[in-house]
Amino acid sequence: MPAGTRIGVLTGGGDCPGLNAVLRAVTRKGIAVHGHEIVGFRSGWQGPLEGNTMPLGLDAVEDILARGGTILGSSRTNPYKETDGVERIKRTLAEHEVDALIAIGGEDTLGVAERLTQDGVPVVGVPKTIDNDLDATDYTFGFDTAVHIATEAIDRLRTTAESHHRALVVEVMGRHAGWIALHAGLAGGANVILGPEKRFSVDQVCDWVQQRFERQYAPIIVVAEGAIPQDGEEVLQTGETDAFGHVRLGGVGTWLADELSRRTGKESRAVVLGHTQRGGTPTAYDRVLATRFGLHAVDAVSEGAFGKMVALRGTDIVRVPLAEATAKLKTVPLSRYAEAEVLFG
Amino acid sequence: MPAGTRIGVLTGGGDCPGLNAVLRAVTRKGIAVHGHEIVGFRSGWQGPLEGNTMPLGLDAVEDILARGGTILGSSRTNPYKETDGVERIKRTLAEHEVDALIAIGGEDTLGVAERLTQDGVPVVGVPKTIDNDLDATDYTFGFDTAVHIATEAIDRLRTTAESHHRALVVEVMGRHAGWIALHAGLAGGANVILGPEKRFSVDQVCDWVQQRFERQYAPIIVVAEGAIPQDGEEVLQTGETDAFGHVRLGGVGTWLADELSRRTGKESRAVVLGHTQRGGTPTAYDRVLATRFGLHAVDAVSEGAFGKMVALRGTDIVRVPLAEATAKLKTVPLSRYAEAEVLFG
Amino acid sequence: MPAGTRIGVLTGGGDCPGLNAVLRAVTRKGIAVHGHEIVGFRSGWQGPLEGNTMPLGLDAVEDILARGGTILGSSRTNPYKETDGVERIKRTLAEHEVDALIAIGGEDTLGVAERLTQDGVPVVGVPKTIDNDLDATDYTFGFDTAVHIATEAIDRLRTTAESHHRALVVEVMGRHAGWIALHAGLAGGANVILGPEKRFSVDQVCDWVQQRFERQYAPIIVVAEGAIPQDGEEVLQTGETDAFGHVRLGGVGTWLADELSRRTGKESRAVVLGHTQRGGTPTAYDRVLATRFGLHAVDAVSEGAFGKMVALRGTDIVRVPLAEATAKLKTVPLSRYAEAEVLFG
Amino acid sequence: MPAGTRIGVLTGGGDCPGLNAVLRAVTRKGIAVHGHEIVGFRSGWQGPLEGNTMPLGLDAVEDILARGGTILGSSRTNPYKETDGVERIKRTLAEHEVDALIAIGGEDTLGVAERLTQDGVPVVGVPKTIDNDLDATDYTFGFDTAVHIATEAIDRLRTTAESHHRALVVEVMGRHAGWIALHAGLAGGANVILGPEKRFSVDQVCDWVQQRFERQYAPIIVVAEGAIPQDGEEVLQTGETDAFGHVRLGGVGTWLADELSRRTGKESRAVVLGHTQRGGTPTAYDRVLATRFGLHAVDAVSEGAFGKMVALRGTDIVRVPLAEATAKLKTVPLSRYAEAEVLFG
Repeated sequence: MPAGTRIGVLTGGGDCPGLNAVLRAVTRKGIAVHGHEIVGFRSGWQGPLEGNTMPLGLDAVEDILARGGTILGSSRTNPYKETDGVERIKRTLAEHEVDALIAIGGEDTLGVAERLTQDGVPVVGVPKTIDNDLDATDYTFGFDTAVHIATEAIDRLRTTAESHHRALVVEVMGRHAGWIALHAGLAGGANVILGPEKRFSVDQVCDWVQQRFERQYAPIIVVAEGAIPQDGEEVLQTGETDAFGHVRLGGVGTWLADELSRRTGKESRAVVLGHTQRGGTPTAYDRVLATRFGLHAVDAVSEGAFGKMVALRGTDIVRVPLAEATAKLKTVPLSRYAEAEVLFG
Repeated sequence: MPAGTRIGVLTGGGDCPGLNAVLRAVTRKGIAVHGHEIVGFRSGWQGPLEGNTMPLGLDAVEDILARGGTILGSSRTNPYKETDGVERIKRTLAEHEVDALIAIGGEDTLGVAERLTQDGVPVVGVPKTIDNDLDATDYTFGFDTAVHIATEAIDRLRTTAESHHRALVVEVMGRHAGWIALHAGLAGGANVILGPEKRFSVDQVCDWVQQRFERQYAPIIVVAEGAIPQDGEEVLQTGETDAFGHVRLGGVGTWLADELSRRTGKESRAVVLGHTQRGGTPTAYDRVLATRFGLHAVDAVSEGAFGKMVALRGTDIVRVPLAEATAKLKTVPLSRYAEAEVLFG
Repeated sequence: MPAGTRIGVLTGGGDCPGLNAVLRAVTRKGIAVHGHEIVGFRSGWQGPLEGNTMPLGLDAVEDILARGGTILGSSRTNPYKETDGVERIKRTLAEHEVDALIAIGGEDTLGVAERLTQDGVPVVGVPKTIDNDLDATDYTFGFDTAVHIATEAIDRLRTTAESHHRALVVEVMGRHAGWIALHAGLAGGANVILGPEKRFSVDQVCDWVQQRFERQYAPIIVVAEGAIPQDGEEVLQTGETDAFGHVRLGGVGTWLADELSRRTGKESRAVVLGHTQRGGTPTAYDRVLATRFGLHAVDAVSEGAFGKMVALRGTDIVRVPLAEATAKLKTVPLSRYAEAEVLFG
Repeated sequence: MPAGTRIGVLTGGGDCPGLNAVLRAVTRKGIAVHGHEIVGFRSGWQGPLEGNTMPLGLDAVEDILARGGTILGSSRTNPYKETDGVERIKRTLAEHEVDALIAIGGEDTLGVAERLTQDGVPVVGVPKTIDNDLDATDYTFGFDTAVHIATEAIDRLRTTAESHHRALVVEVMGRHAGWIALHAGLAGGANVILGPEKRFSVDQVCDWVQQRFERQYAPIIVVAEGAIPQDGEEVLQTGETDAFGHVRLGGVGTWLADELSRRTGKESRAVVLGHTQRGGTPTAYDRVLATRFGLHAVDAVSEGAFGKMVALRGTDIVRVPLAEATAKLKTVPLSRYAEAEVLFG
């Protein structure tokens, strides 16, 4: 893309610490090095659908590196579920003289990016997921921040658990992958870690809990919101609506705390970290990763590498096909749970 | 009390950041200045009831200043509800040659301390409550830490609320007094603050929420767990057991989020901070206050000031009668809510 | 002051976490409750001298509560040292139709505010000092944040000191008053605390250090930058320019570390916290105090209480004459050092 | 190694957050899975030289995961510089019936481990360096914590720099490699980043600083302690002893601040983060990495993989020859500075 090209950028899906760091890097490098103009589209794919834009200049991104969320706003809008979605996007881009897009998002957003590229809209992707469950990159930004917040909570909960000889169940994010549970559990010294990859036995959990009490310590159980008990019990998940029309806060976590109280006779309590895990200032790790993703994404656009996504491999930022990025969910290998399990109890 | 006196110390009620700082100060000053020996009683009033002790020397308290919880453990045992409670305590003290007690706790623990002193067991009290609802002292340690944690959570939630144009309801501790809600709400720039001192109107809350959305920002509502809606709706509180035998996580907070979604049509979500508010390392403020309370409590014992409690007045540590300390709950004056309300919306 | 009055506000002297919280509270309450317009003057007294203003509306203060520093900028300019200073200020206020000022600052800024009020410019003061050395208020905002940062540093330094059996000297702010050293020292469990109020004996410090090493622990010495050794040694202070024209970093702290190494034979190192103590997001405590100061200052203006300053007494915000506020430096009473000293070694 | 084998473990060189996490993982897995006994040697190689040990059982490591430093203590003792060093170590191991060692340390410690293995003492290495300058591993634990602390400091310094229109120079660790400067600089949004890999031009730095001031913002300059100005000026480094016998605090950082003041006429100040960067609780990232290193190190011992070191490659823990690990310093590639440079000014 020649200097002077106008590049659009948008953030889709759930918010995630580091999105603003990507926007800043894209804008600064796009302007300073490549001579591009950067146009922000608001609220995910709604922006290019509806022509809702904001200019991104040096001043607009001056103070956003350390801020959580996204100054562009986000949404879960999918243009392929909207009437004439692709046409409307093409029309918007033409009107705003935008020649290429950078789409920052998770599986859904990147899936759209992939299809749009095939449909003639040149897009480069930047992977984003709190859950770290995208297969084509070693890590995604936002994950380290979520793990940091959950670990801090576990540190706090440990002293109160010990003082009251009480079990504490901490429910963390992770519908389909247990990365946050695994890493925060390891970092917080959890005595049990349960992820969605493998149904768990409540009896086994009770054993670890009892072992811990027998050693005169209090157990912390970290459970991903998507974890499922082995005996197939139907547990409503956090965020689902129950029979009374109420949005549920605490699914498997509160259920498990009740079970532990009942089965072990020891007082057990649940804490659901919820949205605190995805907000606020990103960790240094996530700021660096997000910044590097942004710098490399704008290079990819300049070099016309559309249909590609930036990704982390070891310490390098590489480009991978968008198709590959969204092909497969990256769940926690069972070997990683086994590695951690020697520290349980 | 002459040098060589053995002084017992215990921590009762819910745990609270700063308890260990009190224990350290009592032990170090008791030994170094007054030549006392310090005996720790475990698990609140269970300790003196059952003779369950641990020696507190310089090494035992070396590394505990910055740690949450209490190395003595705690409980809600009340000797006046136990058979021969007072006699058993007297017997334990005689056996261990302990001549006086320092009792660190809230309303219940200090109430016992007051009665025991009248019944011939010399006790000095140290006030402790996360909720800051003891009338005889300007502040109690643990409160600043709870406010700090809740404020940090609000800071995090703000960016996620803004990115998704969503209302977030944060339920904080405070059954009978709204101090944590008020201070964390002020510190976090909450757009609505609701405490238990005054029934709230959901319509009024909806107004503030709408105002906020109209200004193109997202609202944060901070609600104390004990807050009650005006129209007298029965809302189950966090920690209560529901009709199905499940311990409830999220009472008024989750209820209010549902109401807001329903009435305003804007997506609303609840976060319940729960036990994370009472654990972990105390803030510098709480460490200083707890340390000073400990230093002054051991002085009070040395000077035979039994039936008294140490308290903060302005910047001074003073002594007040235990009877006074437990006479009245310190709720938030309505004028303080009015002061904050100008910042709502 | 009637509704519609234009009120000016400025921040003078060194920056301090909480200044923006005051500006936000003044603006929001001034507009919403009193119907005032709020005009920000930039760079302390330079603003009214040179007519350098920025309008402060609801959007301008929307996102500043949690930010350190001051969006108005600051300076140490003193209008009484400028030609026709007072006249120029009066002219600026007339031009901008500003009828009253709120001046947020320390001893110097408030001293100017006091004189200006006498010279016919109606000013209300808001006290600000990291050092907590203003006599007319229990605490000033910024102080708790500085203590928090210093305490966190001490916590970090303790583990490295212990691992290497090494003494660590931490130099904190405090030219004339040792409040930060005292509170951070107490909160961090320092083994020696030295303030400017009383010359210290290096021999005595060595004794405490040796005691600590003999107990198989490593000593942390917290020293205010203004502390002075007893034998009258000339120690250059942090920030002063040395004989070679270099700005000095580390005065008494680095000197003391060298002395300790030399006299005790134990490896000693200094850390100078410097400007990290005055920046960044304010603690919850400081945000609440600053917010309340702002709310009450704008009330004071509305009620015409000029020549007054808002102040904290216990848990109340009161008004005190500016003359009183700047009459006397609030140093640490020697009794407070004595209270802490029982924890040394 | 069969069950029942006694394994020794030691920590050498400068302390580093995460050391205790390694010790805990080694101990827990060594005991629970392999049936080993774990013997801690105190103070680096001094321990095996002098037979200074402490038993490491489950209780000893219960509460250390989140603590900085090392419960074993550390030193820079090199057995190859001691008389009969190797013989003395062999004798100690024989006396304590220790069959293998795990040595946790940096270049020097691992160099000794390599030679000892060749001399018949079976050792497995665990890499440790704050500076991240070991070539055979993607990252070392401690580095993320150092970057986190430095980033937090930069965040704080930014608001004070802006309020006073002042340049702030932050000197961070890094004698030979600029990894901390680069990552903290990127994460903190530094306007200049200077590492030891390439001599810097003060004129160029002045240009970036001026650019920043012209855009009405304040510049933050992050400089590694080992950075060297281009014109070959002799700058004393932090920690070196000056002509007057004083240990220097602030080398290139304070020098550069003086130069910037002089050349640009803008007030410039230096902050030297010093030892605060290496102490205190490790980040979640470092706790996970250190724990995994520990788990894999004890496996390596069990499988007799001596002369090897555990290392991170992507997301995997692998084994590499110790010889390879210490062959080459991993400095920052110039391409990484170039990547960051587009964000300067």
